[in-house]
Amino acid sequence: MKSNALNFSGGPGALPETVLAQTRDAIVALPDTGMSVLGMSHRSEWFSAVLEDAEMNLRHLLGISNDYAITFLQGGSSLLFATIPMNFAARGAAPPEYVTSGYWSAKATIEAAKVTKRNIAWDGKATGYTQLPDLRTLDIAPSAAYLHYVSNETVEGLQFPACGTGEIAAPLVADMSSDFLSKPIRTDAYSMIYAHAQKNLGPAGVTVAIIERAWLDRIPDGLPAILDFRTHVLHSSNYNTPPVFAIYVLMLVTRWLRFDVGGLQAMQRINESKSKRLYATLDALGDAVTIHADPRWRSQMNVSFTFGDKRLDQAFISAARDEGIVGLEGHRSVGGLRASLYNAVTEDAVDLLCSVLNEFTVQHV
Amino acid sequence: MKSNALNFSGGPGALPETVLAQTRDAIVALPDTGMSVLGMSHRSEWFSAVLEDAEMNLRHLLGISNDYAITFLQGGSSLLFATIPMNFAARGAAPPEYVTSGYWSAKATIEAAKVTKRNIAWDGKATGYTQLPDLRTLDIAPSAAYLHYVSNETVEGLQFPACGTGEIAAPLVADMSSDFLSKPIRTDAYSMIYAHAQKNLGPAGVTVAIIERAWLDRIPDGLPAILDFRTHVLHSSNYNTPPVFAIYVLMLVTRWLRFDVGGLQAMQRINESKSKRLYATLDALGDAVTIHADPRWRSQMNVSFTFGDKRLDQAFISAARDEGIVGLEGHRSVGGLRASLYNAVTEDAVDLLCSVLNEFTVQHV
Repeated sequence: MKSNALNFSGGPGALPETVLAQTRDAIVALPDTGMSVLGMSHRSEWFSAVLEDAEMNLRHLLGISNDYAITFLQGGSSLLFATIPMNFAARGAAPPEYVTSGYWSAKATIEAAKVTKRNIAWDGKATGYTQLPDLRTLDIAPSAAYLHYVSNETVEGLQFPACGTGEIAAPLVADMSSDFLSKPIRTDAYSMIYAHAQKNLGPAGVTVAIIERAWLDRIPDGLPAILDFRTHVLHSSNYNTPPVFAIYVLMLVTRWLRFDVGGLQAMQRINESKSKRLYATLDALGDAVTIHADPRWRSQMNVSFTFGDKRLDQAFISAARDEGIVGLEGHRSVGGLRASLYNAVTEDAVDLLCSVLNEFTVQHV
Repeated sequence: MKSNALNFSGGPGALPETVLAQTRDAIVALPDTGMSVLGMSHRSEWFSAVLEDAEMNLRHLLGISNDYAITFLQGGSSLLFATIPMNFAARGAAPPEYVTSGYWSAKATIEAAKVTKRNIAWDGKATGYTQLPDLRTLDIAPSAAYLHYVSNETVEGLQFPACGTGEIAAPLVADMSSDFLSKPIRTDAYSMIYAHAQKNLGPAGVTVAIIERAWLDRIPDGLPAILDFRTHVLHSSNYNTPPVFAIYVLMLVTRWLRFDVGGLQAMQRINESKSKRLYATLDALGDAVTIHADPRWRSQMNVSFTFGDKRLDQAFISAARDEGIVGLEGHRSVGGLRASLYNAVTEDAVDLLCSVLNEFTVQHV
């Protein structure tokens, strides 16, 4: 296999080569301290600076005002599926609303029910999770505690357009794990945004949460400290030992986005170009391949497709691997193939994937 | 500064040089896959092998039978302070009992009360957390859900002797975060043992939990999946994306302990030698220094002491730093100095620390 840049995995995904090079050096000795990043104290000035750097880069990249707190948590989206209703379900006069549009939002909907009464605002299961609703047309009570949705369904390859401010009656909570930092968004359209790192931000083990500060006052007292979002905001993500290494790499990735890529509009142009090329290639193959998502809701991050035959899909995985391309296995819940086009996947890698697709189809289909 | 091996931090602590060298190479390309460890899928065969390798090494090192499940969790001890009572408080006819013997066990005791009724079996606060009880003499109902204690108080430098099988009437739950894998223990004396990695096991971001399988049947239904220990056992620590990198490094550390060090008896001999040398040096300094712990309960892992004067303590930190020794600041809750002698701290590093102590005292005290 050739290079990490040819990793099309759904996550943990590829990271930029320049970030990997800096991280490799930091394992033995950080330039600033001469010590291994793995032995750095979370109470050190060095780590305070890392946390501040990461937060500042996120604020710059996304235009996040001081009305929002930014915290770095553990446990992935799966822990937040439980802690979001623990913290915020009681804040509205009406229960929270959940959009069930794929594998991950279905999990969020199930887990919320263990904590609170909640409504299902929309459910795409009957149509095989191939479509999404227009969030603006859903019948949501403005008094609902919040409306929860997953902005990009990683497994099925479905993506909502970004929301505009004030478009939805109830406060918005979005799991943006698989498209966070892939394009600009209006953060002020949301009351809470969260995203685990292992797609576009860094290695698995850390989750970014952006929370409207005014919301923190609504959290009920008596929660275990570690599950109460106020703890992490109050202690600047340093209440207990945070995942120092994962946050360090995330900081490097946000620097890369800000200073090497040149911000999220530049990143968006690259991501649009990548996904356009891949979808165009797949569309040109006609009946030979089936794309899971309805064309209106195709994701720029995850392209789920199949040759319609397990043997052919496996043969394609092998053919791609011969060219150094890895991570094309579809999620176990839907099977088939999936090409994830996260930020660190290069345009060259996508071009190579398109060539392999064309060649393979001519030869085998 | 010279080398990571001179890191005496309370955690994240030093890691073995050989582990750092392997980790550095893995950031760019793992020998087995040619890919960055940070981009490896948690569903890959490679990662399944890492999980199995880590588990097998732990079973060998500690003699853990198949009556116990081993899982790798996120959130540190702080999350377990909440989830242990969520999972197990109701399993006994009487409430769980908590030993409050220092900073960390006090936190566990407070957090448990947010989840369940619990009793305090012993409290060392009045005596300034300088002593420990003999667990065998505590008045514990055999019907108590469990007895929780922290085997080594990292902040105060107090350490319990290991428990023998059947010595305590109630089932034992121990937070062993800061002395896990520093010496052999009788795991069958416990119903649950847990330890976060950033002392003796690896980088911050992963916590090992060893749970008696028979206990899993007592967990109440209806907990959020991520907080229910059965989820992690059932999915072999791969329910949601685990902290792949931290588990990989932990696996390398367990290999190092097993094959380079030669097991936990060998590790114990080294650790005993290190702590004996440091305590002997401190004792020989007489009134110049005060050791926090009562001599009967001195920890082999963390030595908390002070020159009795903030200015002197700061001067000593500077003098040590000039020799490449770092991480000697005491925990913010007790101040002073602390030398942590985790597995990866070498005997040479301790010898150097002892020399600096002697020299400094002659010159400044």
